[in-house]
Amino acid sequence: MEQADLPVGIFDSGVGGLTVARAVHQLLPREEIVYLGDTARLPYGDKSPATIQRYAREDLSFLRQCRIKAAVVACNTATAHALKTLRAEFDLPVLGVVEPGVEAAISATRNGHIGIIGTAGTISSRAYQNALLTKRDTLQLHSAATPLLVHLIEEDWLPHDATNLILGEYLRPMQQAEIDTLVLACTHYPLAKPQLARVLGPSVTLVDSAENMALALQRELARHKLLRTANSNQLGRVRVHVTDLTPHFEKLARRFLGDKIHDLQAVQLDEA
Amino acid sequence: MEQADLPVGIFDSGVGGLTVARAVHQLLPREEIVYLGDTARLPYGDKSPATIQRYAREDLSFLRQCRIKAAVVACNTATAHALKTLRAEFDLPVLGVVEPGVEAAISATRNGHIGIIGTAGTISSRAYQNALLTKRDTLQLHSAATPLLVHLIEEDWLPHDATNLILGEYLRPMQQAEIDTLVLACTHYPLAKPQLARVLGPSVTLVDSAENMALALQRELARHKLLRTANSNQLGRVRVHVTDLTPHFEKLARRFLGDKIHDLQAVQLDEA
Repeated sequence: MEQADLPVGIFDSGVGGLTVARAVHQLLPREEIVYLGDTARLPYGDKSPATIQRYAREDLSFLRQCRIKAAVVACNTATAHALKTLRAEFDLPVLGVVEPGVEAAISATRNGHIGIIGTAGTISSRAYQNALLTKRDTLQLHSAATPLLVHLIEEDWLPHDATNLILGEYLRPMQQAEIDTLVLACTHYPLAKPQLARVLGPSVTLVDSAENMALALQRELARHKLLRTANSNQLGRVRVHVTDLTPHFEKLARRFLGDKIHDLQAVQLDEA
Repeated sequence: MEQADLPVGIFDSGVGGLTVARAVHQLLPREEIVYLGDTARLPYGDKSPATIQRYAREDLSFLRQCRIKAAVVACNTATAHALKTLRAEFDLPVLGVVEPGVEAAISATRNGHIGIIGTAGTISSRAYQNALLTKRDTLQLHSAATPLLVHLIEEDWLPHDATNLILGEYLRPMQQAEIDTLVLACTHYPLAKPQLARVLGPSVTLVDSAENMALALQRELARHKLLRTANSNQLGRVRVHVTDLTPHFEKLARRFLGDKIHDLQAVQLDEA
C-alpha cells in the first residue's frame, strides 16, 4: 500500500471534532479518515494540562496503531496543551486546530479587534491569544470562556430564548469592544453559527476552525506528497471509534456528520 | 485501631458528592471521611452502564486501600448502574443514594404524584422509578433528564434569568401533572433548591438526597456497631482526593463544602 493511501487520523475528546472530520471529508473526499472520540473521558475542557497531555498521548497511540499517514488534533484544549508534546514524541505530521484559526482571523479582521470564545482550558491556556499576538502585536484581543455553549449545543437548546440570553451575556463585553472577528475556538461551536450571528449581527466575521483546519491539512499533505492521488477514484470512508458508545453519542454523531459515517464502534485505549 | 474508628469512604464522579460529605459531617461530626472525586473522568451521567461499572469498581478499590469501614456511592448514576456489582464484589457495607431518596419521597407525598429529575443516565436507568413503584405501585411518576442543571450550578448561572427559563421548560410537564414532591436525583441539585422552589412554589416538597443519605448511613453504621463512639470527642476530618485537580475544582469544592476540607490532593487510580 502506498503511504498516500493510508488514512488521516483525527481525534477529539468527543463529538466536536466530527465538525473537522466533516470539513476534511468535504474538501478532500478521496481521503480515508479514522476518527477517535475519547467519549469515556470527555470533556477535556476543564481538566489539567498534565491530564490532557496523558489523554492526548493515549489517543494518538491508538490512531498510530491504525497506520495513519498524518494526525489532526481536532480538540482545541488538546491542541493548546499537548500539540508540542505530541510532535516531539510521534514521528508523523501532527496538525493542531489553533494555527489555522489564527491565520484565518488575521486575514479576516479589518479593525484589529478580535474576539475568542472557547472552553475554560483553551482560553486560560492563552494558546490563541499568544499565537495571534506573535503574528501581529497590535491586535486588540477580547477572550471569554463560554463553557455552557457546548452543553446547549449537545442538548439541543440552540433555538431557545435561554440560549440567546446566555450568548448575549457572554458576548456583551466583546460587542462593547467592537470586535469585527470572532474566533470559534471550540470544534462544537460551528453548529451555533446561526445563533452567534444573530446576537453579533452581520458586521462580525465568524472564524470556523473546522473549515480552516481542512485547508491546512490539504497544504500539509501536499507538502509531504501524501495527498491521495487522482487515480484512486473511490470516495474515502469515515470510520469513527469512541471509547464509550451511548445512544446519546450516536444521535449526536449523526447530527454532526450526517450519513457520512461508514462505521461506528467502541474501542478501549491502552492507558498509561 | 478499633474498626469503628476507621473512616467512612464516599465517592462520586466529581464535586456533587461533596453535598453528601457535608450532610454526613453535619449529622455525624465524629466520623472521619475520605472522599474520592473521579474528576479526571467526570461526568458519569451520560456514559454507558459498562463504563460506569468499571469506573465505580476502580473508585471503591482506591477507597478500600484507605482502610474504610463503610462506603457511600454519592453519585446517582453510579448507584443506579453499579451498586449491585459493588455489593457483590466488596466485603463491606456499601450504601447508595437511591434508596434513602425513595423512602423520603414516599413519606413526603400526599397526592401520590412524584417528580424525579436527574442526569440522562440516572433517569434512563429507571432506578428511582422502579424502586418507588416497588414500594407503592399506585404512585404516578413524572421523570425528566435535566442535564443542563449541573452545568448551570457549576458555572454559577443559578441567579440568572436563563436558568429560570430552562427550569421552567424542564418542569412544566410536572407542574401540569400536579406533582407535590420532587426528588432531586443528582447530588449537585441541592445547591439549586432556592431556584427550584421559586419555579415550583411552596406546595411541592423537594427531597434532597444528601440529607437522607446521611440519615441512612447513621442507621447502617449503628446496625453494624460501627458508629464512632462518644469517648472519641475529636471532630472527624474530611479528606478529599481527586483524580484531577484544577483551580476550577478547588473553587467548586470550597463552594460545596465550605471550610470543612482538611486536605485536598490529587491521586491516580489503578485502571483495569
